[in-house]
Amino acid sequence: MSNEVKSLNEECGVFGIWGHPDAARVTYFGLHSLQHRGQEGAGIVSNDGGKLFSTRGLGLLSEVFKNERQLNQLTGQAAIGHVRYATAGTSSVDNIQPFLFNFYDGDFALAHNGNLTNAKSLRRELEIDGAIFHSNSDTEILMHLIRRSQKETLCDRMKEALNTVKGGFAYLMLTEESMVAALDPNGFRPLSIGQMVNGAYVVASETCALEVVGAKFIQDVNPGEIITINDEGLKVEHFTEETQHAICSMEYIYFARPDSNIAGVNVHSARKNMGRILSQEASIEADMVVGVPNSSLSAASGYAEESGIPYEMGLVKNQYVARTFIQPTQELREQGVRMKLSAVRGVVEGKRVIMVDDSIVRGTTSRRIVNLLKEAGAKEVHVRIASPPLRYPCFYGIDIQTRKELIAANHSIEEIREMIGADSLSFLSEDGLINAIGLDFDAPYSGLCMAYFNGDYPTPLYDYEAHYQATLKEKTSFY
Amino acid sequence: MSNEVKSLNEECGVFGIWGHPDAARVTYFGLHSLQHRGQEGAGIVSNDGGKLFSTRGLGLLSEVFKNERQLNQLTGQAAIGHVRYATAGTSSVDNIQPFLFNFYDGDFALAHNGNLTNAKSLRRELEIDGAIFHSNSDTEILMHLIRRSQKETLCDRMKEALNTVKGGFAYLMLTEESMVAALDPNGFRPLSIGQMVNGAYVVASETCALEVVGAKFIQDVNPGEIITINDEGLKVEHFTEETQHAICSMEYIYFARPDSNIAGVNVHSARKNMGRILSQEASIEADMVVGVPNSSLSAASGYAEESGIPYEMGLVKNQYVARTFIQPTQELREQGVRMKLSAVRGVVEGKRVIMVDDSIVRGTTSRRIVNLLKEAGAKEVHVRIASPPLRYPCFYGIDIQTRKELIAANHSIEEIREMIGADSLSFLSEDGLINAIGLDFDAPYSGLCMAYFNGDYPTPLYDYEAHYQATLKEKTSFY
Amino acid sequence: MSNEVKSLNEECGVFGIWGHPDAARVTYFGLHSLQHRGQEGAGIVSNDGGKLFSTRGLGLLSEVFKNERQLNQLTGQAAIGHVRYATAGTSSVDNIQPFLFNFYDGDFALAHNGNLTNAKSLRRELEIDGAIFHSNSDTEILMHLIRRSQKETLCDRMKEALNTVKGGFAYLMLTEESMVAALDPNGFRPLSIGQMVNGAYVVASETCALEVVGAKFIQDVNPGEIITINDEGLKVEHFTEETQHAICSMEYIYFARPDSNIAGVNVHSARKNMGRILSQEASIEADMVVGVPNSSLSAASGYAEESGIPYEMGLVKNQYVARTFIQPTQELREQGVRMKLSAVRGVVEGKRVIMVDDSIVRGTTSRRIVNLLKEAGAKEVHVRIASPPLRYPCFYGIDIQTRKELIAANHSIEEIREMIGADSLSFLSEDGLINAIGLDFDAPYSGLCMAYFNGDYPTPLYDYEAHYQATLKEKTSFY
Amino acid sequence: MSNEVKSLNEECGVFGIWGHPDAARVTYFGLHSLQHRGQEGAGIVSNDGGKLFSTRGLGLLSEVFKNERQLNQLTGQAAIGHVRYATAGTSSVDNIQPFLFNFYDGDFALAHNGNLTNAKSLRRELEIDGAIFHSNSDTEILMHLIRRSQKETLCDRMKEALNTVKGGFAYLMLTEESMVAALDPNGFRPLSIGQMVNGAYVVASETCALEVVGAKFIQDVNPGEIITINDEGLKVEHFTEETQHAICSMEYIYFARPDSNIAGVNVHSARKNMGRILSQEASIEADMVVGVPNSSLSAASGYAEESGIPYEMGLVKNQYVARTFIQPTQELREQGVRMKLSAVRGVVEGKRVIMVDDSIVRGTTSRRIVNLLKEAGAKEVHVRIASPPLRYPCFYGIDIQTRKELIAANHSIEEIREMIGADSLSFLSEDGLINAIGLDFDAPYSGLCMAYFNGDYPTPLYDYEAHYQATLKEKTSFY
Repeated sequence: MSNEVKSLNEECGVFGIWGHPDAARVTYFGLHSLQHRGQEGAGIVSNDGGKLFSTRGLGLLSEVFKNERQLNQLTGQAAIGHVRYATAGTSSVDNIQPFLFNFYDGDFALAHNGNLTNAKSLRRELEIDGAIFHSNSDTEILMHLIRRSQKETLCDRMKEALNTVKGGFAYLMLTEESMVAALDPNGFRPLSIGQMVNGAYVVASETCALEVVGAKFIQDVNPGEIITINDEGLKVEHFTEETQHAICSMEYIYFARPDSNIAGVNVHSARKNMGRILSQEASIEADMVVGVPNSSLSAASGYAEESGIPYEMGLVKNQYVARTFIQPTQELREQGVRMKLSAVRGVVEGKRVIMVDDSIVRGTTSRRIVNLLKEAGAKEVHVRIASPPLRYPCFYGIDIQTRKELIAANHSIEEIREMIGADSLSFLSEDGLINAIGLDFDAPYSGLCMAYFNGDYPTPLYDYEAHYQATLKEKTSFY
Repeated sequence: MSNEVKSLNEECGVFGIWGHPDAARVTYFGLHSLQHRGQEGAGIVSNDGGKLFSTRGLGLLSEVFKNERQLNQLTGQAAIGHVRYATAGTSSVDNIQPFLFNFYDGDFALAHNGNLTNAKSLRRELEIDGAIFHSNSDTEILMHLIRRSQKETLCDRMKEALNTVKGGFAYLMLTEESMVAALDPNGFRPLSIGQMVNGAYVVASETCALEVVGAKFIQDVNPGEIITINDEGLKVEHFTEETQHAICSMEYIYFARPDSNIAGVNVHSARKNMGRILSQEASIEADMVVGVPNSSLSAASGYAEESGIPYEMGLVKNQYVARTFIQPTQELREQGVRMKLSAVRGVVEGKRVIMVDDSIVRGTTSRRIVNLLKEAGAKEVHVRIASPPLRYPCFYGIDIQTRKELIAANHSIEEIREMIGADSLSFLSEDGLINAIGLDFDAPYSGLCMAYFNGDYPTPLYDYEAHYQATLKEKTSFY
Repeated sequence: MSNEVKSLNEECGVFGIWGHPDAARVTYFGLHSLQHRGQEGAGIVSNDGGKLFSTRGLGLLSEVFKNERQLNQLTGQAAIGHVRYATAGTSSVDNIQPFLFNFYDGDFALAHNGNLTNAKSLRRELEIDGAIFHSNSDTEILMHLIRRSQKETLCDRMKEALNTVKGGFAYLMLTEESMVAALDPNGFRPLSIGQMVNGAYVVASETCALEVVGAKFIQDVNPGEIITINDEGLKVEHFTEETQHAICSMEYIYFARPDSNIAGVNVHSARKNMGRILSQEASIEADMVVGVPNSSLSAASGYAEESGIPYEMGLVKNQYVARTFIQPTQELREQGVRMKLSAVRGVVEGKRVIMVDDSIVRGTTSRRIVNLLKEAGAKEVHVRIASPPLRYPCFYGIDIQTRKELIAANHSIEEIREMIGADSLSFLSEDGLINAIGLDFDAPYSGLCMAYFNGDYPTPLYDYEAHYQATLKEKTSFY
Repeated sequence: MSNEVKSLNEECGVFGIWGHPDAARVTYFGLHSLQHRGQEGAGIVSNDGGKLFSTRGLGLLSEVFKNERQLNQLTGQAAIGHVRYATAGTSSVDNIQPFLFNFYDGDFALAHNGNLTNAKSLRRELEIDGAIFHSNSDTEILMHLIRRSQKETLCDRMKEALNTVKGGFAYLMLTEESMVAALDPNGFRPLSIGQMVNGAYVVASETCALEVVGAKFIQDVNPGEIITINDEGLKVEHFTEETQHAICSMEYIYFARPDSNIAGVNVHSARKNMGRILSQEASIEADMVVGVPNSSLSAASGYAEESGIPYEMGLVKNQYVARTFIQPTQELREQGVRMKLSAVRGVVEGKRVIMVDDSIVRGTTSRRIVNLLKEAGAKEVHVRIASPPLRYPCFYGIDIQTRKELIAANHSIEEIREMIGADSLSFLSEDGLINAIGLDFDAPYSGLCMAYFNGDYPTPLYDYEAHYQATLKEKTSFY
């Protein structure tokens, strides 16, 4: 499914480095490889001898950093950066991270990937106690908790604060003395550590960022860990021992870049396996396998390889689509004017097509693509989805918070097939997904979070509990 | 080979429509699907009851047309548009097409894809005779020839002018009364005609643009044809009978979108065939086939399918790379910082890789990619090029005009292999290319232009003859 | 009268320099001091060893030249520049000057201030003969005439062309070998020559530009002169001997900067004299004299000085008004919301005010300002205009081409007084104006063009004759 | 002295309105007339039924509000706005006001003009107590104090907070229920209240803003007052009774717009009086009086009127200078290239000139202007400054905080005269200034703050005391 049309968004990517003379520039390139995790805004904070410098803005990284001068102002040997995902409406530069705080006793920068489940109640308690918030973001909460902690050392104050917030979080912090990374007790979001040739330590949401900056992978940040990096090296501690892996399965299915490894598993390979197992679970006779670009190409090639059916480029995505301000009118759309995705008539005409996609959210995109293929002359279109049906919201950092948005929450497979106009439709099984990824943590589902598929949330929902109960009763609205 | 690094550029794409109430908007979407043919500038001229309106500018189509208002000013039922390819240095809005000329006896717009071989001498003759040119482009020449012709009708004046210019050209013209398309006697550049549901005629450089605007393919414009479209329909005439097909083979290999058909042959399918035949001609034992994104993916999948070796995503292109103003310093590059293309360690580490690319120009890109794969742990890298070695310049519209830029002009295959650091290297044969495309025109090479490979130019070189003789003596400079 | 609200616009300013290592930069500062002569667009062409380089664009000079890099590309020891006046609607970068033409036998740049009266017929003749125009501007015509001339030397070709065009023109041309300035036989527009400390020659529309670049005034370009400047110095020739001074009187009244001298007369001093004579011609008892900022402050201070009535700042112009995109709604305007000009209640309340303005075009601005003063509590407002009533269009470079736009064309002084709500109204007499400026050329009106006041045009009107006869019958529309 | 070159800057302007359907738009026009008080940034917060909406950004108001859409998003019947003054370097959108705070119990917006003298110690105390600040601005402090106050009503919490902060402040606050204005106990900064035709109340830093939006002046906000405006009208209270007028005299001399009244005294008239008294105190024989545009024109005309010497436009300021990115090189400056200010040779050549300026800070500007006049041929230049010598820093909102920047702090009048190259130099006396303004409050200096001239600060200096003692020992650096 193409990135532009899917209503699945994740909350951000982070990157940090300690010990490199060109820290902000390396951070730029690291963030650049994480741009797929967030396009709403970006920022970098650097540390030059204890004084922190910040630039942040709305839009793509390349829109925020338009010239060398901006980057050159971010001097120093350490930096952290953040890319923020695109939500509709209330985008404001106030919410763009990393947040930079200036205190009489030193500067402090903070970046966050994830979603807290007790943010609302914590915020209210803090405000009643005189706290002032400057953004709508959950992220500031941690800062208030740290500043108000009565513990003696900064590290102890951080640990106390990390035990107070609940949900999914990967934090990256920068102070005069050190860079600190911390991951929630379930490890919902990926966070990895690498090292550059010159010894500089690098922390990134995905390993692709390590590769892009030429850093060697050292270790993943594990659930409940707080890792401090400074001139003396890297120190691993725990803020809690009550941990249990529940890695977001959607990272493997859709979000992460295919060249990243999560918990040691390559994302492209996992997707290819999803395609292979899907082919075993839901084989059908056809003339070709077509993947929906770009995220489903790995799964499609796995399906093709396993089934022996040729893999063809039956759909082409316009690579210049990103920044178009002109849209077809409804009338033109009815006349068949398309912009983003084209079916290749010369390839699919008269053929039986297996169309492989990574997931179905609302179903509207699938219906549109099936339609495109049929208009281009495909005789049959068999849709194969390389993940189980999405049926439940996520509260740990993916932007699906109601069941209304999920076609599979209220419709049978057969109903969905009819709605999207496919000749057949199959989804990968939950076991198929778990086997394709192949983790082996001693935890439910081998260490994956499968809540979107089966409602089995690995933590209490806190402030979202009422909302969750309400959305269980909602009907999907299909359009 | 990724678009950004290749020094192959083509001269432009054109799109026109006659008979649609929303002509400029349809032209926008048509051009949008031709954006890969030129990113330096774009323009649209519309015809509203004989008065022509124009907007043009530097940059991508989406940078030229930033809002609805701009498009809405281009009223009328007919329009032509143009995207211009990116050259270094002297880019000026003066050269952006379509050119719009206002005469006391009516407006005239003109767009051009190709390159004239007698432009320099024609221009000089015209200037001596008092003509004033306003651009560096060849395109204006035709306008001067038409205005100075003594023939009675506009059509006869056009025909006379079209017989005076030599080389590769696909012209699109718009006047009060009609839209006119014309193609050189060898048909170097593709040009196709379609029809929309409402009857509007559409002309486009590639059939992908017809698909994108929902138009049905009607016919290709054939060599030597001048086609007039107006409210009475479409009229096909010839300005010359001395024609012979010599379709640019690089359109199939690299330029055209995979979803386009040229002379009835689908580009993706042709590329897949190139990969298949390459596999037959140059097989080797390996663990995986990796295509260089995006243009070599079809050939790579053909190679994989034919060889039975798995097709893997061993290289990932950053989809946000297009508009970055920040570059790694030399020092960072040496530390391994990369931006555009990443090798996927999790896929290629310890493996024997067949890397399929569409072509080699200077060789620097190939060397870089081989190096990327080796740094990511590939045990062996076997480079397979899905076209014959490029050895001669092109004078019909591709931006290679000296042999210096072509590594294969002066080096043996074995020398090139060593220079790019590959474990083995093979190119597709000329016959293999001709068979993969599979045209069957009654012309040399079945109707393809193969001059870049063998120096067999289908026309005299006119103003370029001396330059050509000089470049034959040049040595390739490899860096 | 404030610049923003007046519907009087002039056609441009020019600046050129020969013999300075930083020619383009000096041209930038020269043009900057001429910005009041045109805000629609600006451009500079430099000459580096015969090769000309050009940058031009829409908007203010500071919008066209946004960074040092742009200026640094304009290398060379000579340059000419142009600022273009703002017209509504068809603004296009194609019309921004200097025009740069590339010929096989050398580059040629051309800038123009003025208006030709036989442009339309010349253009049609040229087009019938095969010429192609690329702009709507008159300026290109001279280039076509020069290129088509059969004379032997470039200078002779220029002279022939300059004798073919009619009307008001100040041309500045730049070629490999020289910079050439030429002025029409009546010298409607000012054009002066100066010299910098290093010997570089400078040509400019107004002497204020000479001062700003530190150049010493050498001489005015006289009617019918063609002046060639090159490395050997400055050579003055005539393209015609049939000359007669008719300097545009509006330059003194309104257009030119107060620090410029035209034909040796300082503009501020001329305006102060206009105020003085106006005071003698139309004295009245009052408490204060108030000038309409900025253009009427000189005249107002002359009036005050002569009359002995105190000069006060009763009107204040917001200096930040230039680039505001937000306007008061009609409702807010009715509630008294103002932006550009404020009357100073603390100064005028309860007082009898003499309001001095430079001229009245439509009358709407005068009415508005009288109203402002009365709302701020002025007891009486006596309007004194420091020029005679505008009654006839201009065809030599000022943008009033119909009598409809001129309130005085069809209304008596008493009618105008009533329409603008003044307690009394007087204009400066024609003789008063001539005496205030104090030229003494042997020509009608001592060498001034007074046509706007009395219809006495110093030349035939050619292509405008019919238009002129028609406009004589039009009624003023007052709103 | 021209605005661009003077190193005197004031901290901001504020504007607010309650009870108008187009509140944000009226605020835009009000702020537009206060733009001279700050060009670094601007913002508006509107109140629509208790929900506050905000837009703010760097640059001029017209750069922050670029289109109607932005303004239309600020719905509601009340709004407050702010323009911020330009400082070098650390400008960040985080510091642009009004600040908008979202609390669980309602939104709160805050704008501030002035400078606190105990900001540093208050901030440190608050941070130690867990407070987090998001800007470098003093303004946030009041918000923290209000939120932490234990008083019962919001109004009492505000009063407590207003009694905690010290120095110069004019606050404007907006909540769901009301708009609140408060002024420090000395009334350093002006703040006035007016009423529009429809009954809406308006608060503004200067009365010119009342005039511009068509509001009638009601009253000044007096020292120590807190004024609450809501749907029930206007309520005046005091947060302290210990007040004593010390209105900033620089407002009259330089900052305020000439059409504003401060404490009932028109600024233009005060300046004209300064010129008149200066003429009495320091008369000299000369040919003309020339004012430095724009701020010294009133004083110069007063001087001319009183002395009977003609007032001439001997200096012209380029009105397009504001946004120029291109600057003369040092070499060009030495060759006499100027941009901003020109001396009018045609006026001053061979004449004895009295040059009237409002003040001297460093002296570099005065030296430059004297030099300009002499280069343009002035025979003598007698400098008359319409205020006493600046010798002491300001801690209440003007950006002079060290004596190093003040030439008069360490040099005698005769030394300064020699340094600026004038033939004679005189300053207005302190008594002359007090008499020219003519306040009659029962307070030292009739109610003016004269500290910049005599070091007599009307309040303790708190956090600045040490800094002040140190700067007393500094030497002026003149360059």
